[in-house]
Formats: sequence, C-alpha cells, structure tokens
Amino acid sequence: VTAVVVNGRAYHPPAAPSVVICADGLDPDYLDDAFARRLTPRMAEMVEGGAYAIASAQVPTFTNPNNLSIVTGAPASVHGLPGNHYLDPDGREVQLTDPAFLRAESIHAGLQAAGVPVLIVTTKDKLRRLLGRGGVPCFSAEFAHQQEFAGQPLIDLVGRPNPGIYDWDSSHYAIELALALIPLAEPQLTYISLTDVVQHAAAPGAEVSDRYLRRLDELVGLLLDQGLKVGVVADHGMRAKTGQDGSPQIAFLDDALEAAGVRGARTILPITDPYVRHHAALGSACWVHMPAADLERGWDAIAELDGVEDVISGDAAAARFSLPRDRIGDLFVLAGRGTVLGTSPGAHDLSELHGPLRSHGGLHERPVPMLISERLTPEAAGLLAAGATNADIHHLLLNGVA
Amino acid sequence: VTAVVVNGRAYHPPAAPSVVICADGLDPDYLDDAFARRLTPRMAEMVEGGAYAIASAQVPTFTNPNNLSIVTGAPASVHGLPGNHYLDPDGREVQLTDPAFLRAESIHAGLQAAGVPVLIVTTKDKLRRLLGRGGVPCFSAEFAHQQEFAGQPLIDLVGRPNPGIYDWDSSHYAIELALALIPLAEPQLTYISLTDVVQHAAAPGAEVSDRYLRRLDELVGLLLDQGLKVGVVADHGMRAKTGQDGSPQIAFLDDALEAAGVRGARTILPITDPYVRHHAALGSACWVHMPAADLERGWDAIAELDGVEDVISGDAAAARFSLPRDRIGDLFVLAGRGTVLGTSPGAHDLSELHGPLRSHGGLHERPVPMLISERLTPEAAGLLAAGATNADIHHLLLNGVA
Repeated sequence: VTAVVVNGRAYHPPAAPSVVICADGLDPDYLDDAFARRLTPRMAEMVEGGAYAIASAQVPTFTNPNNLSIVTGAPASVHGLPGNHYLDPDGREVQLTDPAFLRAESIHAGLQAAGVPVLIVTTKDKLRRLLGRGGVPCFSAEFAHQQEFAGQPLIDLVGRPNPGIYDWDSSHYAIELALALIPLAEPQLTYISLTDVVQHAAAPGAEVSDRYLRRLDELVGLLLDQGLKVGVVADHGMRAKTGQDGSPQIAFLDDALEAAGVRGARTILPITDPYVRHHAALGSACWVHMPAADLERGWDAIAELDGVEDVISGDAAAARFSLPRDRIGDLFVLAGRGTVLGTSPGAHDLSELHGPLRSHGGLHERPVPMLISERLTPEAAGLLAAGATNADIHHLLLNGVA
Repeated sequence: VTAVVVNGRAYHPPAAPSVVICADGLDPDYLDDAFARRLTPRMAEMVEGGAYAIASAQVPTFTNPNNLSIVTGAPASVHGLPGNHYLDPDGREVQLTDPAFLRAESIHAGLQAAGVPVLIVTTKDKLRRLLGRGGVPCFSAEFAHQQEFAGQPLIDLVGRPNPGIYDWDSSHYAIELALALIPLAEPQLTYISLTDVVQHAAAPGAEVSDRYLRRLDELVGLLLDQGLKVGVVADHGMRAKTGQDGSPQIAFLDDALEAAGVRGARTILPITDPYVRHHAALGSACWVHMPAADLERGWDAIAELDGVEDVISGDAAAARFSLPRDRIGDLFVLAGRGTVLGTSPGAHDLSELHGPLRSHGGLHERPVPMLISERLTPEAAGLLAAGATNADIHHLLLNGVA
C-alpha cells in the first residue's frame, strides 16, 4: 500500500507504529501552564524534537464532532455529527452514538481495509461504536471490565481494575490499556481518546489538574519509550463559565422564547451526553428548531440575552462551520467566553457538578494544542504554522514526518 | 426597519453613517510595521478608541471571493465565487465578474431594499458589477473618467483625474471618490474596495509602501473627521514568493502532470484576472480538473512538487473551506508560504511584474487585520477575540457597537 485516500485526502501507512491521543478538553492554557512549571518534561522533550502549535477545533466545540473529525480527517458536514446529540426527523432527541449516523469512514477503517493493522481505545464508552465503525478493533476504559482481547480480560492485561468514568485517572487507564494492547495487537496506527472530567472540574494549576497532567506525561513517555511516533491533540478547549461570584452564567433560551410568546420551539443542547456530572448539559453552543412564523421574534429574543455572542440561521451555520444542515436547527446560537446556554433553570441540575461550572462548545474553546513527536517536512510545518485543524493531525503524522 | 436578515444573519441599519474599507492585500505585517514606526497616527488613534484584531480570510485567499464574503457576510459556498476565475461547464475559462455568477445578495442590496441608502466605490472596475448587484450604486476609480453622479463627471467631483490602475495611489482615488460622493448621496452604509498593486510590488517598509500607508491614513482620518464610523479589513494577506536569490519560487503543475503521463488535465489558476502585472497569474492556491482514471497519478505528481503544502480532493476542499463544489476542480492545491503555483514556464510572463514576486492565495495569507473605530459590545468584542472572519466586519460594525 502506498497511500489510501480517505475523505479526499491521501494517507500513507505509518513508516513506524504511531499513536494519536485526543486529550479531551485539554485547553492550551493547561499545557502552557504545565510547560512553564515543568510539570510535563516528557511532552516538553517531545515537542522540542518535534512540533507544537495551536490548531482549531470543529465548531461547535463538542466531543463527538471533534473525535470524528480527528479520525475521519474531515469536517462535520462530511462525517455527519454536529453534536453529541440531535433532534431526529421524528421529533425525538437522540444521542449521536450509533455508527449508522456516520456518513464517512475513518482513516483507521480505510487503512485497515488496505491491510494495515489499527487499534482504537476510548475512555468513554459512548464513542466506542462510532470509532469502531468499519471493523476497527475498539475498546473502552469505561467498560474494560466487560471486555477482553484474544480471550484475556482487559483488566488483567492492564494489571489494575478500571476506575469509574468520573475518576481523575479514567483517561490514564485508556492509555495504560493501549500500552498493554499494542505489543499484542501490533497496530501500525493507534488512536486513544481521553475524557475531560478533570478539565470540567478543575482549572490549570489545581491539584487534580496537575496530577492529571503529570500522569499523562508519564504515560506519553512510556509510549515514546516503546519507539512509537506520537501525536497529541485536543477535541476542544475549556473555560470557566462563571461570574465573579463563582456562580454559573447561563442564558436560558426557553425562558426567553416563552417570554417573547414563541411556542413550539425546540432548543437542542448538543453537549448533552450520558456524563451530565461533567457539565449539567450546559455548553456554549446550541441550536433551536422553530416554526417559520416565529423565527424573527425568537431570533430577537435570543440575540438580546446577556452573554449570547452570535445568532445565525441554520443555513448560515452549516456554511460557516461545515455542519450537516439536516442535523441542526433553524437558529444556531453561540455563547461568549464565560457563558453557557440552557433551556430553563429547572432543566439543569447544577448540584451534580464536580465544582464551579467549566464547559465548552463555542468559539472560545476552538483553539486546541497540537503536539507531534517528529520533525516535520517543510510543507507539513508550513501547514501547521498557517493554522491547522485538529482534523489534520493524522495527515501531519502520517504524511508530514521529515 | 429594525433589522434586515441577509444570508442568515440579521443586520441593523447603521445608527450613524458607516464605512467599511477593504484594503486589498493589506497583510497584518504592513500595519504592525506602520504602527511601530508611527506612520499611521489616525488609524492608531482609531483603534485605541475602538478595536483591532487579526481575522481570517476566505480560502483561497483571492480578491473576488473575499470581497464578496465581506459584502454578503457569507462564505464562498453561499455567494458562489471560489476565485477570480473558473472553468465553466462548457470547458471555457471564465472571469467571475458577471453578477449572474452570484448566488447570494449583499448586505448593501438587502439594506437598500429596506429603504436604507447605500453606496459602493471600488478601485478595480472588475468588481463593479459584482458589488453593484441588486441595484446598489457602484462606481470605480479605474473608470471614473467615464462615469458620472447626478450629471456630474466623477473626476470633477474628486477634483483630479483618476490615476492608472497600476499607479500607487489608485486605491486612494477610490476613497477620495467616496469622500466626494458621501455628502451628495448621503448613504448610511458605504463600502470602499481598494487594490493591492502596491502590496504585490513592495514589502512593508519600502518607500512606496510607506507612501501608500501614510496617504491611506490621511484619508481614513478624513472619513473619521466627517463623523463616519469606520471599519477597515483586508481581503487577504501578502507574502514574498521568492527564494533566497530573489527569484520566484514556482511549482509548475502542468509540467509535473505531463511528466507523470497525465493527459487531459486542466489546471485553473483562480488568481487570474485582468491585472496580470500584479502577479503574472501566480498565486498560492489552484485547482485541477482531471479525468478520474488519472486522478491518483496526478495527485502524486502534484503532491511531490517542492513547495506544495497540501493536495486534497475537490469534495474535501469544498467541505473544508466552504467553497461551491461545482466551481472548483477535482484536486485542490495549496502552496506554502514562499511558493506559488503555475502551469508551465512559458505561460507566465514574469517580465511584466513590478518587482520581486509577492502574491497570495494560500493559507499563509489568511490572517488579515480588522480595525473598527467604535467601542464594541462585550459580545462583539468576544466574537472578535475568539477569531472573526473578514465576512464578520459588517456584523461587528452594524450590530456590535456599544
């Protein structure tokens, strides 16, 4: 195999076994701080001999759309997932976790079909079926206790029981699992997807953030010690969504729509997923399905809410952010740096949050770090410098190594 | 009129007469240098009381797509123009200057239809019919000697004959013309589009660059003195496309395709316009129409050329950069920071260039300056900080002033 074309881009099989880590919610602020305080010496060393840049995430900056952009190398208009969640044509809100929703194959599926062995490990089980589409072997840390590889229970391979999905080290377990599986499965390309439970709960410099980063760094070091080429990228950033008193700043759309006399609107919060303790379904982007007759009134009502940064039509959002038009609503809403979007106060249980609200979804969580352990060709370095997206990481690692 | 929805965004009529200037090819490097050397005191003062940020241009970073993005507030997939030039369905190369090619109305046409008077002045006449679509009064500096307003020859209104289109001050003439017309036509919103002849010819700090910027600054000052709210943005940046010896670095696609045995490919250089002395039709992005059977071979041949930064399919490019799929080719090619794309050496007359080759079209000319004379609302300031596009400037100036 010289190259496999997936979603309009040609990928060379890795020259040496390679790993991409999607560090969920790893805002550039965490790494800047970690590098400044020398918390992460292996990653510092890795980028010294390789590359480090700020890339852009898919908007809305949520987990599922960005994980799929990373593994397909394509925007959401191509892979089909604009959020974690959407309103289906029958009027039901549905989690976008079924592989039937995908409209594009992954780079991993394409390489595997060409005879190149691949492997995927995800922390959150919600991504397992999506990432595994096309027969890609895919395991999750969350359900490792129920899964096995070649007859061996995964937790025996790792040597410790898997933590709960809300534990600080559930992400690290996914990397430990990959470290155990790689010598057995001998994949040429591995993808490891982490969870952002720590980033939702703690700012850069907090004790648990530091602990998370130090252990992440050790594990990246172990991957490098195995001779693997490593890329690290994030699906989205993370920001405090609180006012000066530490309370959440929430723009409640349904209340505003009701006050404006709009009936029959459906506000979809596409951050919604099974892990509500992270974010109480509060993110900085959403869309609204609305009867045409109410559109203007609803638009005005939402645009006037404090902290709402932009309101555009579904058509405009699809064109601007490369989203699948049929899976977003009639109005697309972006909240500002410190604000999230909700429906009405009663619908969000803030008591379950891990701490002061931190979340993502909007434009302010679009910058993400990108780290590559290898020296790049001038062309790949140029692309990275000119502003890559997280969907470019497999291109850079597979095609761009000098 | 409270607001007019154009291409999925609501625009309020300006609270006070407002002007947007598209400073063609005004790379952020020119302004950084000008501010550092205090060449442009009026613009420095303007952004001190207002806003200054780096925004993103439409890719490919050419003049027509970006001028249309600025006046429609929408990407090229919506307005329909992916370049200055394209291959039509009959197999002819056609300049994209006829308004029939446009698929979206401009903000100016929308406001005018709602009874808000508007005005457009362009330096290059090639943009006049496009920008004037929808009955918007539109004049050009290039052909000012043939045009009149309310029975008066334009050159009498300005008080001096119009310079040639390759003269250093042809852009300034467009602003002078706007300054003369605004008191007569009393537009609430004016758009002034400049030319990049100086930027193609001269780097920041060159004598003619300085002269251009000093006079631009004086004219912006005159607009501000008339009490106008002013926004300044660029359509694209500009970079030297030369090697260390000063000679142009050109990747010749047709030569590479021929050497690879590819027949029947058509390379389209979408920078092509009537003003070849600017750039000899050499830019940093292009596309190629190619028989399906040759696609893989052609793809490899182009990807291997020195200075080619990325090659993706037409489908992938349309999704990634929001381009009209039917107006680009089968392969979309981006050159690196210092390289341009040509067909074959004989097709480009470099002897006509004004100086060492400087051009644009790729990712490295995507950052553009954005200046607004007014204090913005927190939401508009947030959007600008999070990464606006040049297509957002009318939104910021009309909807985002505090």
